[in-house]
Amino acid sequence: MNSQLFIYNTLKRKKELFEPLNPGRVGLYVCGPTVYGDPHLGHARPAVTFDILFRYLKYLGYKVRYVRNITDVGHLVNDADEGEDKIAKKAKLEQMEPMEVVQFYLNRYHKAMEALNVLPPSIEPHASGHIIEQIQLIKEIMAKGFAYENQGSVYFDVEKYNGQYNYGILSGRNIEDMLNTTRELEGQEEKRKAIDFALWKRASPEHIMRWPSPWSIGFPGWHLECTAMSKKYLGESFDIHGGGMDLVFPHHECEIAQSVASTGREAVRYWMHNNMVTINGQKMGKSLGNFINLTEFFNGTHSLLTQAYAPMTIRFFMLQAHYRSTVDFSNEALQASEKGLSRLLDAYKSIERITPSKEENTLKNDSITSAGELIVKSFEAINDDLNTPIVISYLFEAAKIINSALTEQCSLITEEIRDLKRFFDLFLFELLGIKDDPKDGEASYKSFAKAIDILLEIRLQAKQNKDWATSDKIRNELTALGFEIKDTKEGFEWKLNR
Amino acid sequence: MNSQLFIYNTLKRKKELFEPLNPGRVGLYVCGPTVYGDPHLGHARPAVTFDILFRYLKYLGYKVRYVRNITDVGHLVNDADEGEDKIAKKAKLEQMEPMEVVQFYLNRYHKAMEALNVLPPSIEPHASGHIIEQIQLIKEIMAKGFAYENQGSVYFDVEKYNGQYNYGILSGRNIEDMLNTTRELEGQEEKRKAIDFALWKRASPEHIMRWPSPWSIGFPGWHLECTAMSKKYLGESFDIHGGGMDLVFPHHECEIAQSVASTGREAVRYWMHNNMVTINGQKMGKSLGNFINLTEFFNGTHSLLTQAYAPMTIRFFMLQAHYRSTVDFSNEALQASEKGLSRLLDAYKSIERITPSKEENTLKNDSITSAGELIVKSFEAINDDLNTPIVISYLFEAAKIINSALTEQCSLITEEIRDLKRFFDLFLFELLGIKDDPKDGEASYKSFAKAIDILLEIRLQAKQNKDWATSDKIRNELTALGFEIKDTKEGFEWKLNR
Repeated sequence: MNSQLFIYNTLKRKKELFEPLNPGRVGLYVCGPTVYGDPHLGHARPAVTFDILFRYLKYLGYKVRYVRNITDVGHLVNDADEGEDKIAKKAKLEQMEPMEVVQFYLNRYHKAMEALNVLPPSIEPHASGHIIEQIQLIKEIMAKGFAYENQGSVYFDVEKYNGQYNYGILSGRNIEDMLNTTRELEGQEEKRKAIDFALWKRASPEHIMRWPSPWSIGFPGWHLECTAMSKKYLGESFDIHGGGMDLVFPHHECEIAQSVASTGREAVRYWMHNNMVTINGQKMGKSLGNFINLTEFFNGTHSLLTQAYAPMTIRFFMLQAHYRSTVDFSNEALQASEKGLSRLLDAYKSIERITPSKEENTLKNDSITSAGELIVKSFEAINDDLNTPIVISYLFEAAKIINSALTEQCSLITEEIRDLKRFFDLFLFELLGIKDDPKDGEASYKSFAKAIDILLEIRLQAKQNKDWATSDKIRNELTALGFEIKDTKEGFEWKLNR
Repeated sequence: MNSQLFIYNTLKRKKELFEPLNPGRVGLYVCGPTVYGDPHLGHARPAVTFDILFRYLKYLGYKVRYVRNITDVGHLVNDADEGEDKIAKKAKLEQMEPMEVVQFYLNRYHKAMEALNVLPPSIEPHASGHIIEQIQLIKEIMAKGFAYENQGSVYFDVEKYNGQYNYGILSGRNIEDMLNTTRELEGQEEKRKAIDFALWKRASPEHIMRWPSPWSIGFPGWHLECTAMSKKYLGESFDIHGGGMDLVFPHHECEIAQSVASTGREAVRYWMHNNMVTINGQKMGKSLGNFINLTEFFNGTHSLLTQAYAPMTIRFFMLQAHYRSTVDFSNEALQASEKGLSRLLDAYKSIERITPSKEENTLKNDSITSAGELIVKSFEAINDDLNTPIVISYLFEAAKIINSALTEQCSLITEEIRDLKRFFDLFLFELLGIKDDPKDGEASYKSFAKAIDILLEIRLQAKQNKDWATSDKIRNELTALGFEIKDTKEGFEWKLNR
């Protein structure tokens, strides 16, 4: 496990060698979705990014405890401390109990993640299931003097905290600037300063999601859950915390403040952030009319899409950019990815058709690298802060070698062919998490079914020509494959028994 | 919604007309799994049983809020109040955090339920996520004087409760008998009587799952979660509570006692219980070596199984028994079900091939009933406490009519054919929840792929015979279906583009 994996630590603003806190084990926490709407690219990108990390750490032999939370309470509409709870608002609109909304969208999130071949995390804790732990954390922060109560709500005292520690350490924001620029919002009179953030909110009478606490019947602030749940499941100090770059401020900055205020030290050793997604060069947003959810991508049902894109195309496309770069979705770019992925999968399937050379590899020719070199270089790339686009470029090189071997422009010995297969198996399938599932899709079933009809038409023709040999042959071969064929007045019927 | 649905109410020991508490709405609570092992038939049966109820109530137009819980804490090994927590024990064995065990088996449970086409419930609350609500309930029971604390644990005072209410009302057990026969177990000295049950348990030092409470750092008793969570999501009084018959005592009896003790009245209006599952006539049990989990059924990997059984075969087989009868699993019985289901699905697919008669139905012949009558009688059956085996027998009658029409032993007018299709669509697919998914299974993909090879062999042969017409025809037709065909030195290659 001397892996030489370097990851970019947002906190340190540089790449650092990853060394786990406890040898052989990694604690990983990633911010999951607030489940009040359909999963979209903004959910898919962190999920896929940290899926690569999860897969690679496991490949390296670490025992990884991967915690990805579900926010089902406390996330208010304006992402600050006022406005309705996002889930309660949706519940009101849909005339449902808030937890029905949570369950409905959580199920859809899980389905989409499965389609994208994102492995499930080890623990998926719900914010609403950890109110006690959150109350406990508030008590600890208050005991250290970094929070104050006002009319049943509790706020984090940012200025006081900053006097002793550094509020802005992650985001690079300067508290003086923030104090000068943060607007005092209506309804925030309870706070001493606008930059203070809520740890506990007294529930208004119409607020449905509410729990007793020492301060009021209310609900926890949004930032609290991640600090409380990561501590519960990964300990007071743990290895890696990930999430989208949009969470750096205020969410993760506040998480750090909460940890440091309660325990005196930072909990997270490596902070990792994936960059954002744009659509045709624009930020994705409901008001911009370019908000495409994952189901719409998979079915091609959004007006901006010219076709459906398989989940694997979406995954592959995202991995063709480095996770710290933005990714711009467009039909053209997705179609190129679809073709590219299909080229890789075809090449992989063709490996077994290469006739091994008994002589030397003609790879020694300088113009192409060997599979062994490609594997080494791909490890270098993935060790360099998960540089998946570079890995993919090596996979394309390998595909080129395979195609050259098939057309006999080069010749490969058995070991080389085996290495090529090993390269694809490890990097394309195991680490990048691409799957080639021939069973998928009703469309392909229909094509196959019609091909059987064609075959049976040929048999019918043969029978009419009294060519019994052909007719029997087709029948017998299909029967051996599990097809049941019935001759009828109109011609034939068939079905496939399992 | 004047449905005339009668359901057997275990509490009243008779069938009763179902009338919801609030017009147009139904609150349904079903006991879900304790997630510390692979899902098995004992999980599948209640899930399928109440899935039928859920589907039918929705069909009747009710807005159903279906809550099925996940027990992730408090369920002790001996199902009484002593022994290790089932999940903590498994976590220790597998060297995992208890919530990792929960997540692992919960994911597997969800996969199995999806394979069985069991619809997800509206809310799936976790016991560990509702500790506050459980503590609140204990306080209410204590305030009414029906619970006592001893050394940090809190017990329900069964005898005192029975003095005012009826402990045994659901199970029919007599408290005097129980007082005389219940053994005093070691480690239960804290209880005043052996029949008292735990509401809160003080955690021993090595116990991992623990929360603060007014009495001790500890964890809730097993029976508490369902009372607390059904109240939270369905209200103090709600329509239907379901579960396996093995839960009648003590679990559901204790639930009733907790509700009545805290609020003065029973929460549940209809108690429904599915009967148990046996394997080759024996109770299923790990010690008996006949414990087959669902994955083993689906893959045929248990030594007692002679083949794999598709999830739909398992579902159909369970529905061929009434939910209040035991179901005995054996290879012979499952194979008969597999054939029977396949007969129904074949008949359904053949409906479109019936040539409609322009004259009258020859169904007027006394020996067969019309589809309309079958629909009416199937509604009568499902209204009679979800009598699915009777519904299935009518589906077989319909299949017989379809087959007679195909062989021209009877003739059907267009309306009759349409009604037959409507009967299958509604009862077999929508209400019994059978799905006929032709995409399933790698096996079928392989058969199809080989059939394409056969077709291309025929084309190769035609080419060699210079029969260009045949060769081009096959190529063109396959290309139109999305197949890409390449001629190679060895013969051919093909792939299917979506």
